[in-house]
Amino acid sequence: MDQLVERIKQKNSCVVVGLDTDPRRLPDEIIRAGRRVDAVLNRQLAEAQLEFNRIIVDAVYDKVPMVKLQIAFYEMLGPSGLDTYKRTIEYARSKELLTIGDIKRGDIGSTAGAYAEAHLASEDSPDAVTVNPYMGSDAILPFLEIARPRGKGLFVLVKTSNPSSSEIQDLEIGSSGERVYEAVARRVAMLGSETVGRNGYGLVGAVVGATYPEDAAKLRKMLPHTYFLVPGFGAQGAGPDDVAGCLDSRGLGAVVNASRSIIFAYEKSKNVPATIESIGEAACEAAETMRKEIDAAFARRRARFP
Amino acid sequence: MDQLVERIKQKNSCVVVGLDTDPRRLPDEIIRAGRRVDAVLNRQLAEAQLEFNRIIVDAVYDKVPMVKLQIAFYEMLGPSGLDTYKRTIEYARSKELLTIGDIKRGDIGSTAGAYAEAHLASEDSPDAVTVNPYMGSDAILPFLEIARPRGKGLFVLVKTSNPSSSEIQDLEIGSSGERVYEAVARRVAMLGSETVGRNGYGLVGAVVGATYPEDAAKLRKMLPHTYFLVPGFGAQGAGPDDVAGCLDSRGLGAVVNASRSIIFAYEKSKNVPATIESIGEAACEAAETMRKEIDAAFARRRARFP
Repeated sequence: MDQLVERIKQKNSCVVVGLDTDPRRLPDEIIRAGRRVDAVLNRQLAEAQLEFNRIIVDAVYDKVPMVKLQIAFYEMLGPSGLDTYKRTIEYARSKELLTIGDIKRGDIGSTAGAYAEAHLASEDSPDAVTVNPYMGSDAILPFLEIARPRGKGLFVLVKTSNPSSSEIQDLEIGSSGERVYEAVARRVAMLGSETVGRNGYGLVGAVVGATYPEDAAKLRKMLPHTYFLVPGFGAQGAGPDDVAGCLDSRGLGAVVNASRSIIFAYEKSKNVPATIESIGEAACEAAETMRKEIDAAFARRRARFP
Repeated sequence: MDQLVERIKQKNSCVVVGLDTDPRRLPDEIIRAGRRVDAVLNRQLAEAQLEFNRIIVDAVYDKVPMVKLQIAFYEMLGPSGLDTYKRTIEYARSKELLTIGDIKRGDIGSTAGAYAEAHLASEDSPDAVTVNPYMGSDAILPFLEIARPRGKGLFVLVKTSNPSSSEIQDLEIGSSGERVYEAVARRVAMLGSETVGRNGYGLVGAVVGATYPEDAAKLRKMLPHTYFLVPGFGAQGAGPDDVAGCLDSRGLGAVVNASRSIIFAYEKSKNVPATIESIGEAACEAAETMRKEIDAAFARRRARFP
């Protein structure tokens, strides 16, 4: 995570722009066609997706350290969409942005090895991927094996930001008061412990939703060497103060993702047509506003707990 | 699951052949080239994968009800691999085989919708997919929404067959003695309850590893209307008696997957070159042997517990 920390310092921002570029939501001006998703349109939509992503990357690359690609929105366009996924990663990399592939894969043995190979080994693969822990360490170690020699990272789902995350993740274990997500957190800490870099963080990070700020603050204490990827800001309802608890005393330790609220920010100005300028400016402004809000919340928190 | 039950009765077999066609393991005779996996070879390997899968489908289509495709082995070859994935599904369908896409996706909201769209909605998508429950019902409902009007199915990971499945799935909840996988099982039963068909099974199935036969037998009782997809037979060490406990009194209620032990069965005959005939015959024989072993174990079980 040292590379990440460097980029965060360089950009003075922990904001991750989520390129969750839902083809169903692309502006007609970019598609230059209808909105129906079917086989005939897939290639055209994937081209529009790539153009849209380039606009966003161009607008934010000097403001944020990292972009996150939700692979589902590329998979739904088939091979053309996956081509856009890879070309977006290459483009973001050419602008010195780090990239996370939000793939949430979780499988075992040779299968996990195949996923890790597919999503972390090639040149056009992202710098980090998200991984699902339900099957246990068998599902995480093969990714770590591919990530480690390449200096790449993982973010393991620990406490996710969605409403039903409580169904499994919050179950209380035995009579200890510990919850399932805390048991997962302990394993994540263990798996990353041998990879801690000069900034104090290991290659195995954790996905920790900002929508549960108390759980997040508890996890921050439990996991001093684990970088957090924090979803839930903006569209999902978490605010800057909820996020501030995920940061360490240096203001590091977490990258905060927002997707729709940044990339589709231009939709708010209803009378402005979607152009390269209006899309890019709105995204840049949304990312900057978010950074400032988090900075202010962090400063307030430091004033209270110096 | 009524379609599945019909195919099982028609073929008199609950064996699912896993087309886990690892490109790293394809015979040179089929690739007609080296074994290195890289960008140049991807298209050629994907072609070989498709040819190999056709050999297996041709060999087993009149013996088994269903094939399962582990998508990781196709994803690792990029767009060409995903093309093979879809073309294999179409080919299997043309031979009246049902298909499971072993995708183990788990995400929420519009993302889960995009995955469901990608993996269940199009004509070349499988009849069922596997889903990961770590994020809760939010991760399952969007799949069910797409599956239900199409008469397709889901198999939710409940108790997986791998060694480290115990790390999360076996954690005991509170002081009830109930384990995490049982809590997941109860939700699976609830989600499927409104979709029970004439054979007594709903569209939401469960992945239950045969490597933990006591847990599987307990789940069989807990989930009378839930079809099981049972991995772990063969390569992972579970035997026919372990599987028999997953079947209901009619011998239905579970499909049993074996992948490597069927599709790569020809490797056992070291002096026989890999040809269409030797690969196909070995796969057919392995599937038939497996069916007979399970039938015999089921008969033994019925004799003991009539």
